[in-house]
Amino acid sequence: MFGGGGRKPLDYDELNENVKKVQYAVRGELYLRASELQKEGKKIIFTNVGNPHALGQKPLTFPRQVVALCQAPFLLDDPNVGLIFPADAIARAKHYLAMAPGGLGAYSDSRGIPGVRKEVAEFIQRRDGYPSDPELIYLTDGASKGVMQMLNTIIRNERDGILVPVPQYPLYSAAISLFGGSLVPYYLEEEANWGLDFVNIRQTVASARSKGITVRAMVIINPGNPTGQCLSQGNIKELLSFCFQENLVLLADEVYQQNIYQDERPFISARKVLFDMGPPMSREVQLVSFHTVSKGYWGECGQRGGYFEMTNLPPKTVDEIYKVASIALSPNVPGQIFMGLMVNPPKPGDISYLKFAAESKSILESLRRRARLMTDGFNSCRNVVCNFTEGAMYSFPQIRLPQRAIDAARRAGKAADVFYCLKLLEATGISTVPGSGFGQKEGVFHLRTTILPAEEDMPAIMSSFKNFNDSFMDQYDDGSSYSRM
Amino acid sequence: MFGGGGRKPLDYDELNENVKKVQYAVRGELYLRASELQKEGKKIIFTNVGNPHALGQKPLTFPRQVVALCQAPFLLDDPNVGLIFPADAIARAKHYLAMAPGGLGAYSDSRGIPGVRKEVAEFIQRRDGYPSDPELIYLTDGASKGVMQMLNTIIRNERDGILVPVPQYPLYSAAISLFGGSLVPYYLEEEANWGLDFVNIRQTVASARSKGITVRAMVIINPGNPTGQCLSQGNIKELLSFCFQENLVLLADEVYQQNIYQDERPFISARKVLFDMGPPMSREVQLVSFHTVSKGYWGECGQRGGYFEMTNLPPKTVDEIYKVASIALSPNVPGQIFMGLMVNPPKPGDISYLKFAAESKSILESLRRRARLMTDGFNSCRNVVCNFTEGAMYSFPQIRLPQRAIDAARRAGKAADVFYCLKLLEATGISTVPGSGFGQKEGVFHLRTTILPAEEDMPAIMSSFKNFNDSFMDQYDDGSSYSRM
Repeated sequence: MFGGGGRKPLDYDELNENVKKVQYAVRGELYLRASELQKEGKKIIFTNVGNPHALGQKPLTFPRQVVALCQAPFLLDDPNVGLIFPADAIARAKHYLAMAPGGLGAYSDSRGIPGVRKEVAEFIQRRDGYPSDPELIYLTDGASKGVMQMLNTIIRNERDGILVPVPQYPLYSAAISLFGGSLVPYYLEEEANWGLDFVNIRQTVASARSKGITVRAMVIINPGNPTGQCLSQGNIKELLSFCFQENLVLLADEVYQQNIYQDERPFISARKVLFDMGPPMSREVQLVSFHTVSKGYWGECGQRGGYFEMTNLPPKTVDEIYKVASIALSPNVPGQIFMGLMVNPPKPGDISYLKFAAESKSILESLRRRARLMTDGFNSCRNVVCNFTEGAMYSFPQIRLPQRAIDAARRAGKAADVFYCLKLLEATGISTVPGSGFGQKEGVFHLRTTILPAEEDMPAIMSSFKNFNDSFMDQYDDGSSYSRM
Repeated sequence: MFGGGGRKPLDYDELNENVKKVQYAVRGELYLRASELQKEGKKIIFTNVGNPHALGQKPLTFPRQVVALCQAPFLLDDPNVGLIFPADAIARAKHYLAMAPGGLGAYSDSRGIPGVRKEVAEFIQRRDGYPSDPELIYLTDGASKGVMQMLNTIIRNERDGILVPVPQYPLYSAAISLFGGSLVPYYLEEEANWGLDFVNIRQTVASARSKGITVRAMVIINPGNPTGQCLSQGNIKELLSFCFQENLVLLADEVYQQNIYQDERPFISARKVLFDMGPPMSREVQLVSFHTVSKGYWGECGQRGGYFEMTNLPPKTVDEIYKVASIALSPNVPGQIFMGLMVNPPKPGDISYLKFAAESKSILESLRRRARLMTDGFNSCRNVVCNFTEGAMYSFPQIRLPQRAIDAARRAGKAADVFYCLKLLEATGISTVPGSGFGQKEGVFHLRTTILPAEEDMPAIMSSFKNFNDSFMDQYDDGSSYSRM
């Protein structure tokens, strides 16, 4: 009675084709090779994922104290608790436990704990100057899960197109493949500091439509991943007008909003710019904004806390999103508490304030210095050019690969940037992600690295990179030919 | 330029149809009404979800101590830590922190922390007597996320069918809708203590195939949800032979394996029975088994810890599943530690053993008494019959609704069991889920309630139920007509 010529349902050939189409380079060939080398005893510097604690960043003390107490509520009755926990951490733990009947071990509402969603709404109002409704804020297991849910809600079939920046964080391409939609790439302009060019974007949309694609949504990552640019208010305005004219949902990935390394363009949320623009746009443009506890000076990746906020979505749609969120019952509750703490940190005058402020500032200032060290380091290398990392956690240098390196890569059966990154890994232990994992223009090559290695290690890492790059270029660059910029 | 007649992409009519088709009764109409009543000040007994801590079950102390220390690793250097944490909790926290570079704040490998997966494999080997490979065990944010991922991997299009027990836990029907597959229901036999009838199941499969459905997988929930039955070894053998003959992947939802309330049929995993049967079946049948920290005497629902183990899946498929798991980077790390603790609890001789054993035993024995109290309570009510809750966390009584009640429900525009459950909620505050949310035979009505209310509250709850049911039956039952059994 076997169907399919004796094949079994979970044999590779029998799997959902959309699953097979998914590509996810951040943990792709380079990562797998790095893991192998690590097993063989080689020291690997994992700069492939924005995972600050894995590279030695210490967690902020206050939120960890609060969540530890929430995990062990019986400590609140222990006469010795005051010896190792400050009073404001104890008070805050009681505050969250009062919001979460049953504590961290109980499923919350599928949208998250109402009291935490209220704290998020208050944070958004303070940040943007416009009120925010907790009923339109859903807590998630990290921002990625929220992005996936929204894409799954939007994509109906393979003719539904999603505008995604290229280079992009591959969560977007992977999720669009998985849900069977079409990725419509729009190129960021490397020469214009990875800015948006709406003449090109309009052409892209027109061209996709002429091929029968219904372009339904646009993704923006601000600050940029992997590109590190911070969008100006003017750029975001143009973006919103474009979404309004073209009837697109804007998915605003703003997970790096705390990670800003210059003063000219502070973070401005898409939601604030939209509300500043007033009606009709402020009442019409459908916007979903994402945030997380994994980035910023928190870097609490493993806790999987995030939220999305919905603007101008009709109530029936909000209900549908609630229903689907309910299938997996509840985001993890400790991650929700971290989100509450992130949007409602210690205030001046609180016992823990000075320590919290000092820890945050120290991390952020060090990241700013590392962004500079890394960009300068790359720009000091032969055939390497790199825009300054204005925000987020990554440098994305262009490597101008000589034709002989491209030819050698072809003979090795590898994309040229994969070839370069593999050699870099073998020579130095630096585990990066090739630009092809994020998308790049034909014949132009990049790599992405996080700026997260410890500051004191940074000079040695950049010098190790430079040595590798020099000898790579010595080997392949006879000065006669370059890949185009 | 607006497409779709001025409709916007996230307007209800424009959403992914599969999203709209999803039904999820556990948090459906009854839950929403209960939440409203709670807001209005009514005392609600939430027995709609298996959420033990929300109903007052205390967390086990030792695992909470360990995870609290992992959250606050700086405590390990505090000279006072020994005053409030036992030495074995401190040692265990160090054990897990050594496995998790970067601690709880770092993304782990997308499959979970290797050391925890090894502990899970050792647990499975002790339980089943056969070795288990950590590389085939993936940790997940609760079991539901794993189930969803597997269904997404299997379902290619609307002609792919998944055999699901009816009554079923609606995670399955909801996920199958969301991923665009076809649910093929097979009925459990209420008169045979919710057992499997393979004559019927074979007919079901043949009938689905004759309609062009490719039946690819079979779901079994053991112990049963909502039905509470424990499968015998013979039943599982028959099930596996059936999957072998029909070329079906078996998805074994074994999340209630600790929740056993009788001694005749202890829990036996599908994997053990499969390996007991030997080749060719033990090498051929594709099996995925699910487990969680949310159930059992742990009940750590909010922590979202789970795993699935893959048996007889080809390596290329295992790699695809790894790739898709990578899109969301990492299951939450605290939930992974809970899983490690669950499969590797304190041992005799450990400082915390006696306390841990006493706490576990007390919860499990109380659940056993509550299962009995509840079943007996239901069976003492007019027009109510209920199989004994042999395992899991639910009672699923049949309510023999008089024709006049069915007619009244129809006039109110409600399914008859929804009508009954809403009236029960309004009268008593007991929040249940109507049987129609799980599926039931035409004209037969049930409700599901958890057995989780505190033991001391149970007599009052059952008496409140009985009073409601008596007056309901007084109102609608003139003795002349019944719905069929």
